[in-house]
Amino acid sequence: MTATAATTTMKSFVFDGLNKVAVVDREVPRPGPNDAVVKTTAALICTSDIHTVRGALPVEHGRALGHEAVGVVHELGSAVEGFEVGQRVLSAATTPCLQCHPCQRGYTSQCQGALGAYKFTVQRDGNMAEYFLVNDAVGNLTAIPDDVADEQAVYAPDMLTTGFAGAEHAELEIGDTVVVFAQGAVGLCATMGCKLRGAGLIITVESIPRRQELSRRFGADIVVDHTAGDTVGQIMELTGGEGVDAAIEAFGFPQTWEAALYVTKPGGRVSNIGYHGEVAEPLKVPLDAFGLGMADKQIWGGLCPGGSERMHRLLRLLQSGKIDPTPMTTHEFGFHEIEKAFRMMENKEDGMIKPLIRF
Amino acid sequence: MTATAATTTMKSFVFDGLNKVAVVDREVPRPGPNDAVVKTTAALICTSDIHTVRGALPVEHGRALGHEAVGVVHELGSAVEGFEVGQRVLSAATTPCLQCHPCQRGYTSQCQGALGAYKFTVQRDGNMAEYFLVNDAVGNLTAIPDDVADEQAVYAPDMLTTGFAGAEHAELEIGDTVVVFAQGAVGLCATMGCKLRGAGLIITVESIPRRQELSRRFGADIVVDHTAGDTVGQIMELTGGEGVDAAIEAFGFPQTWEAALYVTKPGGRVSNIGYHGEVAEPLKVPLDAFGLGMADKQIWGGLCPGGSERMHRLLRLLQSGKIDPTPMTTHEFGFHEIEKAFRMMENKEDGMIKPLIRF
Amino acid sequence: MTATAATTTMKSFVFDGLNKVAVVDREVPRPGPNDAVVKTTAALICTSDIHTVRGALPVEHGRALGHEAVGVVHELGSAVEGFEVGQRVLSAATTPCLQCHPCQRGYTSQCQGALGAYKFTVQRDGNMAEYFLVNDAVGNLTAIPDDVADEQAVYAPDMLTTGFAGAEHAELEIGDTVVVFAQGAVGLCATMGCKLRGAGLIITVESIPRRQELSRRFGADIVVDHTAGDTVGQIMELTGGEGVDAAIEAFGFPQTWEAALYVTKPGGRVSNIGYHGEVAEPLKVPLDAFGLGMADKQIWGGLCPGGSERMHRLLRLLQSGKIDPTPMTTHEFGFHEIEKAFRMMENKEDGMIKPLIRF
Amino acid sequence: MTATAATTTMKSFVFDGLNKVAVVDREVPRPGPNDAVVKTTAALICTSDIHTVRGALPVEHGRALGHEAVGVVHELGSAVEGFEVGQRVLSAATTPCLQCHPCQRGYTSQCQGALGAYKFTVQRDGNMAEYFLVNDAVGNLTAIPDDVADEQAVYAPDMLTTGFAGAEHAELEIGDTVVVFAQGAVGLCATMGCKLRGAGLIITVESIPRRQELSRRFGADIVVDHTAGDTVGQIMELTGGEGVDAAIEAFGFPQTWEAALYVTKPGGRVSNIGYHGEVAEPLKVPLDAFGLGMADKQIWGGLCPGGSERMHRLLRLLQSGKIDPTPMTTHEFGFHEIEKAFRMMENKEDGMIKPLIRF
Repeated sequence: MTATAATTTMKSFVFDGLNKVAVVDREVPRPGPNDAVVKTTAALICTSDIHTVRGALPVEHGRALGHEAVGVVHELGSAVEGFEVGQRVLSAATTPCLQCHPCQRGYTSQCQGALGAYKFTVQRDGNMAEYFLVNDAVGNLTAIPDDVADEQAVYAPDMLTTGFAGAEHAELEIGDTVVVFAQGAVGLCATMGCKLRGAGLIITVESIPRRQELSRRFGADIVVDHTAGDTVGQIMELTGGEGVDAAIEAFGFPQTWEAALYVTKPGGRVSNIGYHGEVAEPLKVPLDAFGLGMADKQIWGGLCPGGSERMHRLLRLLQSGKIDPTPMTTHEFGFHEIEKAFRMMENKEDGMIKPLIRF
Repeated sequence: MTATAATTTMKSFVFDGLNKVAVVDREVPRPGPNDAVVKTTAALICTSDIHTVRGALPVEHGRALGHEAVGVVHELGSAVEGFEVGQRVLSAATTPCLQCHPCQRGYTSQCQGALGAYKFTVQRDGNMAEYFLVNDAVGNLTAIPDDVADEQAVYAPDMLTTGFAGAEHAELEIGDTVVVFAQGAVGLCATMGCKLRGAGLIITVESIPRRQELSRRFGADIVVDHTAGDTVGQIMELTGGEGVDAAIEAFGFPQTWEAALYVTKPGGRVSNIGYHGEVAEPLKVPLDAFGLGMADKQIWGGLCPGGSERMHRLLRLLQSGKIDPTPMTTHEFGFHEIEKAFRMMENKEDGMIKPLIRF
Repeated sequence: MTATAATTTMKSFVFDGLNKVAVVDREVPRPGPNDAVVKTTAALICTSDIHTVRGALPVEHGRALGHEAVGVVHELGSAVEGFEVGQRVLSAATTPCLQCHPCQRGYTSQCQGALGAYKFTVQRDGNMAEYFLVNDAVGNLTAIPDDVADEQAVYAPDMLTTGFAGAEHAELEIGDTVVVFAQGAVGLCATMGCKLRGAGLIITVESIPRRQELSRRFGADIVVDHTAGDTVGQIMELTGGEGVDAAIEAFGFPQTWEAALYVTKPGGRVSNIGYHGEVAEPLKVPLDAFGLGMADKQIWGGLCPGGSERMHRLLRLLQSGKIDPTPMTTHEFGFHEIEKAFRMMENKEDGMIKPLIRF
Repeated sequence: MTATAATTTMKSFVFDGLNKVAVVDREVPRPGPNDAVVKTTAALICTSDIHTVRGALPVEHGRALGHEAVGVVHELGSAVEGFEVGQRVLSAATTPCLQCHPCQRGYTSQCQGALGAYKFTVQRDGNMAEYFLVNDAVGNLTAIPDDVADEQAVYAPDMLTTGFAGAEHAELEIGDTVVVFAQGAVGLCATMGCKLRGAGLIITVESIPRRQELSRRFGADIVVDHTAGDTVGQIMELTGGEGVDAAIEAFGFPQTWEAALYVTKPGGRVSNIGYHGEVAEPLKVPLDAFGLGMADKQIWGGLCPGGSERMHRLLRLLQSGKIDPTPMTTHEFGFHEIEKAFRMMENKEDGMIKPLIRF
């Protein structure tokens, strides 16, 4: 059950102060009794990492970035059963303890407090490093089936689980109408999620042609170009004036948040998966969009759900070929090129959607 | 099945222009095939009527006010079965058609559009009149059991159903913690509703002694006086710093709305039953209270659910003695004193909570 | 709004005593105030009709069979709004009143009592006739979009709504494992429904090659042939010994019912959409399959949900091309050949799955 | 954090072969890294212990009985945080790992397999001993508030959580009608649970006067005596022929199971919390009671839910005085009298409901 690896140092891609990143040498982490240490084989860079480096969250200087990775088990804590060194595994971007009250309640993303399951980078080193530690490994580590490749599986930890949560919190009935605002990687996965929940009409909002094309491929029936005129008006017209059953906000800006409220029917749901830290002001709920508080509109703003049971289900969808997120991988880099990849991601250069990092 | 009543005119208490009311003579309404006409025996004045007269909603001049009443069947439409002239009945304040898409979807309050089941006063004469019409009577008319008095039953159409919806939308688990903001009649009924759903700790926010006392009587474990210091701070302290599982906003002001968001745990619910038309500005969702959109907090702003099935269940609770709302009836008037009652209600004079009108 | 049609007689395909059917002349029905009369353009024969003729339900002699049809509005009741004579429409096989307590509760199939929304044939003439009446037309009549053909739309009233209900009552999470027992038309639609709800692994049980092929086409990952060995054993092996998250019983026999209980995980769901009237004995719940009553297995046996809101959503799926049930139409007949079609359906001759009847 | 206790042996009340029990000397258990060892202060004897000794479950010879106890922390595993030696605590009768797939799915009672969270006695020594071990202590150990006495708290681990689960699985709406079959301790707690969920009419079935009286005290509106005539008939009459919204089977016999199915409305729920191991035959689902599989009746047979979050909520209800189960404690014994208490419990001598054991 324990590793024999003599390796003790590794390369790690870290936050090096506001707007700065660096590759540094670090000790390979050692597991506590319930932890596992994973040797990274592939990772994705997330826009959240960009936000973090820009100061969105108070992160310790020198903390490794990254929370979307797959690898092989390197070392297991003394109390961890059910896994073997060398086995291909992943964990979600959030790694709940599964024992605290919010976790037991089913709100595992809010482990021990608001957004508390988001431990990579925020509470300890992330996984943009040659090795990374996973807490509460029995509940967080997930075996990757042989017939699912790393470049597929690496979408499960954050993109798929977040996008699908957007669709799940929309509580769609079969045949419902839904709109997804913005078709970045998370928005595209929300579109995929809406299709998986049986939506009858999926409208997405996006102006970049490559993303529009992927949006259609992943399930959009109609792509609205917000640069071509009033977005709310276009959606209302497409729904015969009645609005959609649910709106998913995957952009994280005040305008899309408010548009989501406006286009949703009375009795409909607004599901937020956008990060609203870019603009420092409170979000607004216009009284007419909200029926003066009485239109039975329901709002749910959630964070990436983790845990091995969910990861296992997402991997099953990849395994049975029901979804394929890899067309979002627009670029590929070796870990030695990580800084270049990160800088390109900051401005989404060259039409970048998700860059895959190979270790 | 049809009435023999020769009565053709009646007294009606109407909206007579901004801030004005009057008692006028009107034709007794006649039912269409699916309607019923009820002879009023008792009614309650609602704060919503006050809002209406102040211009909250665009209401036709001369429209009868009122939406909380009980009576006896006066005349039945040709297609209405299951009721008899002379039978004691009520309908909820909202009278959904039950046939349109929102109704079939279960959002009966949003019948045919936002807040569309609120037909009394808004779409047609209210029931602060000697007779009133109920649309879609088969689904809206509800027989009152012999052993439930008018003065009890009259709480079902709006106060109980609205307050209980506040508790239901809070989706309480047995033993949960909950706070109800404001203990007017609707807030008091929400408190009663929290007790009925098995809350473990019910905190209410109220400063008026008479209401504080009723609050305790109806289920509050602790009443927080918002005039005695920071409300959010008091509630956080009472919950050991972790906040409540759910907050019910029954006041309808920006401060209580925001406080509700702040005191709710990650993964908790904010249930709004307050009318937010008094302040014309959008409601605000502070980013820290909302975890930047990711704290899994869920917001539901609903309107008084109607329909005979629900009314039947509320009457059952009165019948089996499980609830008794009548201590909220602080005053009683004859219908000839309606203007006086209405004017007292405007300023909640003499500690008025709900004035009962006898016909 | 009213018809000018001088037509007063029509052909009707009726129950003519045990195991007998006949085509007879009838009066064209006239609508009451809330009804509509529809001129039939296409219909499907259902196995339930076969059961009925064999005596499964106590049906009046001479009652028209059939409950899956589409057509055009012929005449509207005086209180029916929102439709026009000549408009293409359908109603579900169940036509709930939407006003009674079970309907208001959301159990519209149980309108006014057990299975009470199944009014065609049981309570009044079915729609295997040139004209048929739809009660409570505002809530039951559904416009068919121009770009949905009759031969597609005709699957909505029973096959799609029943099969999808099977999947909905299985309460699948994204990526779940599910098994569907039997791939007749309803079972095939359940398979389609499982795919629409995002199942990760769909196993079906069927031995007839044509149905196996359709099963794969509609979403099955693996088709188990029950004639090739122990069905429960095969399913347990396919799921690594842990069983499925949910089992859908679409056959209606004691063996499949019990197998469904056995292959379902603790905490899983058994969704029954099979008709269990063929074998007169009580269904059995084996104690080991049910964890002595404590394995948190949940059983739901439902009936075809109706109402225009649901039909509207099903038609949307056809309209946006997300589903296509027409490969199940193995045969086509004119209404004058109805007896022949019915007799072939009795024994599923010539690989019949669903025969379409053109009027 | 660790104990200094020199104590190494203890008295333990064990299964000593079919129909035999004994008090024996045992080693005080030592915790693994995630475990805690608790020094028992009070316990209840459960009818399940009686079943076990009669051979209901294959239990190892010499295994300690008991699963309802409270105590103080004696020793904590190296990885256990948040508790202190000497602190008053309890754990539920089921002690889920909270990490496996069923646990993550929310079916914690089915931890790692059917009924798998029921570890006391079945998988390791129970807590009818001077000390007992609790696995996964962070998620299972629950602090008892100072103002909740041992004799109150000791009802939380099994009686309250099981009875309340019975009511929760009945999915009651406010004002619903419900029947609880049998008013032993679990049935009485189900009655209490129905009241906590806002049932409008609670009917219970019981013939023993002392239990009938407690039933009324805990929430029953009407107690039906099954010895006074046909139970199903009596319940149908009390509900005006329509049956109840939900039935809770807390007896565990074929007759009550079937009666529960018969008295439940179409669209209603049957919640089983009875242990059905006494009669070796499969349970029966009569076709007429089940609408031939289509009456939308839902059946859920569950097992005692555990975990500290739930225990915490149950303790809150005791703390705020909303429930008081202690009237069920009909007898009290010292641990040295445990055999006598157990023998009396076998035949419910002297009107015994629950005997409290003091350590």
